Amino acid sequence: MKHFTSVKDMGPLDKAIQEALNIKKQKYAASDLGKNRTALLIFFNSSLRTRLSTQKAAENLGMHVIVLDVQQGAWNLETRKGIIMDGDKPEHLLEAIPVMGCYADMIGVRSFARFQSKEEDYGEVILNQFIQYSGKPVISLESATRHPLQSFADHITIEEYKTTDRPRVVLTWAPHPKALPQAVPNSFAEWMVAAGYQLTITHPKGYELDESFTQGAKITYNQQEAFRDADFIYAKNWSAYRDPGYGRILSTDRSWMVDGKKMELTNNALFMHCLPVRRNMIVTDEVLDSPRSIVIPQAANREIAAQVVLGRILKGLPKNE
Amino acid sequence: MKHFTSVKDMGPLDKAIQEALNIKKQKYAASDLGKNRTALLIFFNSSLRTRLSTQKAAENLGMHVIVLDVQQGAWNLETRKGIIMDGDKPEHLLEAIPVMGCYADMIGVRSFARFQSKEEDYGEVILNQFIQYSGKPVISLESATRHPLQSFADHITIEEYKTTDRPRVVLTWAPHPKALPQAVPNSFAEWMVAAGYQLTITHPKGYELDESFTQGAKITYNQQEAFRDADFIYAKNWSAYRDPGYGRILSTDRSWMVDGKKMELTNNALFMHCLPVRRNMIVTDEVLDSPRSIVIPQAANREIAAQVVLGRILKGLPKNE
Amino acid sequence: MKHFTSVKDMGPLDKAIQEALNIKKQKYAASDLGKNRTALLIFFNSSLRTRLSTQKAAENLGMHVIVLDVQQGAWNLETRKGIIMDGDKPEHLLEAIPVMGCYADMIGVRSFARFQSKEEDYGEVILNQFIQYSGKPVISLESATRHPLQSFADHITIEEYKTTDRPRVVLTWAPHPKALPQAVPNSFAEWMVAAGYQLTITHPKGYELDESFTQGAKITYNQQEAFRDADFIYAKNWSAYRDPGYGRILSTDRSWMVDGKKMELTNNALFMHCLPVRRNMIVTDEVLDSPRSIVIPQAANREIAAQVVLGRILKGLPKNE
Repeated sequence: MKHFTSVKDMGPLDKAIQEALNIKKQKYAASDLGKNRTALLIFFNSSLRTRLSTQKAAENLGMHVIVLDVQQGAWNLETRKGIIMDGDKPEHLLEAIPVMGCYADMIGVRSFARFQSKEEDYGEVILNQFIQYSGKPVISLESATRHPLQSFADHITIEEYKTTDRPRVVLTWAPHPKALPQAVPNSFAEWMVAAGYQLTITHPKGYELDESFTQGAKITYNQQEAFRDADFIYAKNWSAYRDPGYGRILSTDRSWMVDGKKMELTNNALFMHCLPVRRNMIVTDEVLDSPRSIVIPQAANREIAAQVVLGRILKGLPKNE
Repeated sequence: MKHFTSVKDMGPLDKAIQEALNIKKQKYAASDLGKNRTALLIFFNSSLRTRLSTQKAAENLGMHVIVLDVQQGAWNLETRKGIIMDGDKPEHLLEAIPVMGCYADMIGVRSFARFQSKEEDYGEVILNQFIQYSGKPVISLESATRHPLQSFADHITIEEYKTTDRPRVVLTWAPHPKALPQAVPNSFAEWMVAAGYQLTITHPKGYELDESFTQGAKITYNQQEAFRDADFIYAKNWSAYRDPGYGRILSTDRSWMVDGKKMELTNNALFMHCLPVRRNMIVTDEVLDSPRSIVIPQAANREIAAQVVLGRILKGLPKNE
Repeated sequence: MKHFTSVKDMGPLDKAIQEALNIKKQKYAASDLGKNRTALLIFFNSSLRTRLSTQKAAENLGMHVIVLDVQQGAWNLETRKGIIMDGDKPEHLLEAIPVMGCYADMIGVRSFARFQSKEEDYGEVILNQFIQYSGKPVISLESATRHPLQSFADHITIEEYKTTDRPRVVLTWAPHPKALPQAVPNSFAEWMVAAGYQLTITHPKGYELDESFTQGAKITYNQQEAFRDADFIYAKNWSAYRDPGYGRILSTDRSWMVDGKKMELTNNALFMHCLPVRRNMIVTDEVLDSPRSIVIPQAANREIAAQVVLGRILKGLPKNE
């Protein structure tokens, strides 16, 4: 594996799942693989699960990890090209990226959509600059349009919990007080279809996602209809993708919250969410605290997903000098 | 050892001291014990000694360490139950804690008293949630009511410096410009009595500590009387425990500052403080810079105390998968 | 090596260069040297290259690394002596430094000039307190007056790229929107002269550096003249050293920016900068993005410079208990 930015980098998914389940049984079996290797994890945005699970996975593989929060301790970074740098940003990404590449064997990058320009966000300008200029393998720790380590962990989790070969998976929009990126739903939709599941996406009118991610999924504005006979309910908020209105909140309709009554419509479905989750906005305490909620084992699989990816990248590295 | 939150978790103290003194001679003798083990250190509050000494101790034992400052880089955490999360806190402790537990073999937590509710502080709501929901051993890195790694280091230090079997130890209140928790004096009092020392606590009227911690100690409002014939002077500020006034500053009387003249009343006592210490508020430069001050060796013992505790917890862990 | 704060601590420079070039070929050959050793890196100021390259170098040597950003997570530190600490700084350097020394085998310190007092800055008050009170080897990660790890990396880089024995090296001032310390130019001038290069320094009138650093260099106010026949152009901004005006911006003259036309005056010179660099203030995109720019390999050599220094300090440590 050269870079990891989407499901397209994973190769056959059944093989990836098998690898994940093997690692889960023996996390420390390859603790020599990462000897004298350093993963640099760069965060432009907040992180709990990604930060901890990726560190843990790297250390399971015997790697060193250096974490850098760009807003804290480092220089504020300029991203625009061709400008006169006479403002408050003393360093340009054009230098910072290759410099970071000098001191690491691979680079993980978290950089959310900024909602300043749809073209910039969906062009994955930051992530692609890391790929282009760092000279090292790049791992998305959630980019503007995808969160592939999350989607891979979601896939592993469904494989562990499913009771039919091709489960019915429902991605439902839910209300949220802030405008959130589309990275998680984009990535989830794309991955679930690639995994061969029956995917239904439900949301209020206007919240249609970029079709290049949702191809192969059924889309409906009727949440109740979507929940009927579902095996897995995956809740998530996102802001509008379509123009005009990209990045905006179109609905605050709390009737879209997932509650116990809606869960009763399902085929005794399991509840999933990528976390962090807003209790009693996205989902009621009742559902989240019920035995049908698998959000914690889902989060635990973030370590496994990261370990598969880091392990594959390690195997692809040139020999150490 | 399952969790470490107070002296009650230590078992026989003479054995603990012996273990500490052995480790001090051979810090790296057990550097295989922590192989493929990860300590996660969570800070809700500032830390210098605890942060560094616990990391160092964990690394002496061959562990990996992941440090998380909750205010920086992670999500702002909600702690109240049953509320609608439509404010500025995107994640609830109810998810964050078990998630953290997924990626670590043990969790250290620093969470000071917040002085919003005495019941919440003295109920150790945060610490207990970690114990209840993380699924992993929990180590107090100073909680709302105790700072047991500090108290253990204090104990080790007194054992190293004492010249009589049951030294006279004096805990004295001293003035401070900000309202501070009672965790250090509570924990110190409890531990010193358990260690079998002759403990006297002196403070202005109104600063009485929770009696469940000070049982077995002599309490006096007369600082000079307390200092007479003391072998160790331990200075510390704290805010009021009693109601009404919990968490408030009742006195700013600088005549309570420890100075050279007061030290002359003692039996050539050694001066201790947990640090950080406000010079010329808590204690004069003269005393702190004198050879009778042992605050630095006391701080150095924080590493040893942490290593005993982490080592014991490591020994109690289930075998690695 | 006991401490590392300037070129004077390096011994014969040809030997240091040879050591650097050997390490560059085999970065992990001495990965046992730092076993059970901990480097503590303290940052009072922002850092990207120094932070990452020093961590990487320490880990190449098998050391543990603890990074502490003083403004984040630790206590705000008082530096003035003799005062009553009743303000917003709860801890004094006089305690913090020896405490840090307790938990580390060596301490790296970044502490920029503060421009509050030239005497304090040029007296290296902070750095010297670490040397005096920590009880451990101290490594400058850029102090008030010098940035020796940068200068050593500059030296290594010039040795790798030079085509004549004693190349003509030009240090040129360039404009910048903020007042910057003199540490990089001081240290560079001192090191280049020690390396035996032909050094010319060019800047607007009033920007003369402290002569104790520039001894042996030619100084001119005529930038064009300086560039003529140069083999290396090293650009950097600094604020005024001379009084009155210490730490102030005397010129914002953008005609001092390095551009392609000026580079044509040189002997096909290579362009260097310590980074971070303000594009189109210090140097044009054209020059920085040209093949004559070696700022990235120069930054990469920061790891090598640090590894030489840390390795030498490790060799000088007393045996581990």
